[in-house]
Amino acid sequence: MTAVAPRIDPLHQAWDAIDEAELRRRHSLKWSDVPEAMGAFIAEADFGTAPAVDAAMRDVIDRAGYGYLPQWLLAELREAYTDFARERYGQSIAPERVQIIPDVLAGLEHAINYLTRPGSPVVVPTPAYMPFLEIPVRLGREIIEVPMLHDDAGWRLDPVGIDAALEAGAGLVILCNPHNPTGHVASRAELEELSTVVEKHEGVRVFVDEIHAPVVLGPARHLSYATLSPAAARQAVTATSTSKAFALPGLKCAQLILSNDDDLAGWAQDGVRAGKLASTVGAAANVAAYREGGAWLASLLGYLESLRTELDALVEQHLACLGYDSPEGTYIAWLDCSSLHLNESPAAFFLREAGVAVSDGAACGAGFAAHVRLVFATPRPVLRSMIERMGEAVRRHQA
Amino acid sequence: MTAVAPRIDPLHQAWDAIDEAELRRRHSLKWSDVPEAMGAFIAEADFGTAPAVDAAMRDVIDRAGYGYLPQWLLAELREAYTDFARERYGQSIAPERVQIIPDVLAGLEHAINYLTRPGSPVVVPTPAYMPFLEIPVRLGREIIEVPMLHDDAGWRLDPVGIDAALEAGAGLVILCNPHNPTGHVASRAELEELSTVVEKHEGVRVFVDEIHAPVVLGPARHLSYATLSPAAARQAVTATSTSKAFALPGLKCAQLILSNDDDLAGWAQDGVRAGKLASTVGAAANVAAYREGGAWLASLLGYLESLRTELDALVEQHLACLGYDSPEGTYIAWLDCSSLHLNESPAAFFLREAGVAVSDGAACGAGFAAHVRLVFATPRPVLRSMIERMGEAVRRHQA
Repeated sequence: MTAVAPRIDPLHQAWDAIDEAELRRRHSLKWSDVPEAMGAFIAEADFGTAPAVDAAMRDVIDRAGYGYLPQWLLAELREAYTDFARERYGQSIAPERVQIIPDVLAGLEHAINYLTRPGSPVVVPTPAYMPFLEIPVRLGREIIEVPMLHDDAGWRLDPVGIDAALEAGAGLVILCNPHNPTGHVASRAELEELSTVVEKHEGVRVFVDEIHAPVVLGPARHLSYATLSPAAARQAVTATSTSKAFALPGLKCAQLILSNDDDLAGWAQDGVRAGKLASTVGAAANVAAYREGGAWLASLLGYLESLRTELDALVEQHLACLGYDSPEGTYIAWLDCSSLHLNESPAAFFLREAGVAVSDGAACGAGFAAHVRLVFATPRPVLRSMIERMGEAVRRHQA
Repeated sequence: MTAVAPRIDPLHQAWDAIDEAELRRRHSLKWSDVPEAMGAFIAEADFGTAPAVDAAMRDVIDRAGYGYLPQWLLAELREAYTDFARERYGQSIAPERVQIIPDVLAGLEHAINYLTRPGSPVVVPTPAYMPFLEIPVRLGREIIEVPMLHDDAGWRLDPVGIDAALEAGAGLVILCNPHNPTGHVASRAELEELSTVVEKHEGVRVFVDEIHAPVVLGPARHLSYATLSPAAARQAVTATSTSKAFALPGLKCAQLILSNDDDLAGWAQDGVRAGKLASTVGAAANVAAYREGGAWLASLLGYLESLRTELDALVEQHLACLGYDSPEGTYIAWLDCSSLHLNESPAAFFLREAGVAVSDGAACGAGFAAHVRLVFATPRPVLRSMIERMGEAVRRHQA
């Protein structure tokens, strides 16, 4: 009779062992911009990146690859991404539809400036990733906020509200899936409902932010909007990147997938600048992550799933009075603090009273001033300490 | 009695030893996008970068520094640049005036979008760096080309032409100094004349591209336009970077210096996106280059000066029928091929007949279709081979 030890992932052990001092030594933005607090306010993970990415960076150093982006590297990136999307999402994309951009927001800017009716408003389901409420305004567009629906099953898009906004003349809908900040992963039915609504309105595009697509937690599955149907493919302008899954946002490289033939034809003219703003090292790193990062990503997802389980329990234990839906994807949690009846923003409250820096829900849309966004991609003991401190702050407040 | 051997720079020997096969192994854009030809069409140098930059990249790998740009790194970059500008150009800049942007062109876009009268035309002295003739149009602006003056003393700005363009309503002048593509370095008198002209016209800005400022060859000296006078400082919106001197264009990091108080005040609002498009690794590399790259840069400048001497002789020997002014800065030469009376662009001619890829002068402004731009920052034997092949092509054509 042999005892079978549970298989332990050595990466999980290594990540469990990262403490706050080590995080501060690395001085990432999350652990240095608000030096007096534990950082949970910006969507970056604390687990480093895949060894393949580090190897790609060393190769860049070896061949002094800091120059302008060569054609061969763009071709490799297109192939690496389309292979990744095929294996992971069963998605078939022609490589020439994949464009390189510096970040997902550059894709949104392109969609607004070149793929929508001039001056048409932009539909932003809320709560929303904060820049989605800033960039359209900066580009001279009105925003129509459409609050997502929420019930015991969690968050979902409001097709009736979106239909009304399109009826009122909006030309673009922003779809963030997996969703930042709620952690919701859209179902096929939900996406099909959106596509049906959009199809009623001539020429409307859907800007699909799938930056968290590789970060879907079991049992949820990622479904790329453009693969729903030929109609959805014509509507979709899809952006994704390795920046969330592989912790590379500072490398400035993302992908824009143009599944609409007109959008693709226009890119050669309208996308010139956006295409030249991506970094060459970022392209090399994205290739390595997509091609060789699978095993590391599997470890990461396992760890994030265990962190989510931990977070569920920690919230139940320490923050049970807050509204919370267990995230289905991303490493972001969205907490409703309205039961605290604070006379300040909950982010300010947790910063001062718990020493934890979270994002202010007010920046995510009208009606969310009592919410906070918490990034839970941090080593387990650090996450425990954060939630415990937040719990103590709440108990003191309620005492 | 001791014999004193001439001091040989080991870097110069190493650079002399780089051959075409090694350049192709590194597959930079210049040596791979036009695989059948020798590359001289894009302004990147073939000598790698300073050891301090490589060390900074290794440090990024060690601390997984691929995340969002933290405040401390922006502060370091500002300090590193202002120290560099003080030591090198005797220029005193308040660090908070230095902003981070992905590339010089992002600075031009910012200047056009936010710092000029809406709709006002842009003055572009020609010949010009090609994107200066594209970006204003893309942003909805008319371009007024003002050809530079040329005589036996070389190239210089035409203040009368610029004055007329401003009188006609232009709101921005693009000043590229050191000048791409002519290699001209502006004198104090020339810059003062421009500033006097600009000052006659209310609210006009000068976008000052000083990306080649560290690459001025003896005996020329770089003078930063904003340091001329308080008036010039108010006019100037200055962009620079390590990308030319240290061969880092693919890292997407440059600096924008806002010497006008109004421009500085507006940055917090209008510069948010541009500031977030710079890469974090690029910022780390720029800091290393500015702080610790001095000795390597001195070697590079010595080598570029010797290459220029070589180029002067090679042109005299092989291309004497072309118009040529020995460059005072940059690693770019501008060749007038009109005496060849080609019935095609000289770039097409040299590509086919010499296997050398140079830039087509037609893209640098009206009236320059008979010119080519040649990047001479390549190992000495490679440069010799290029010019010899171009010379043979010319002799065959003239035979």
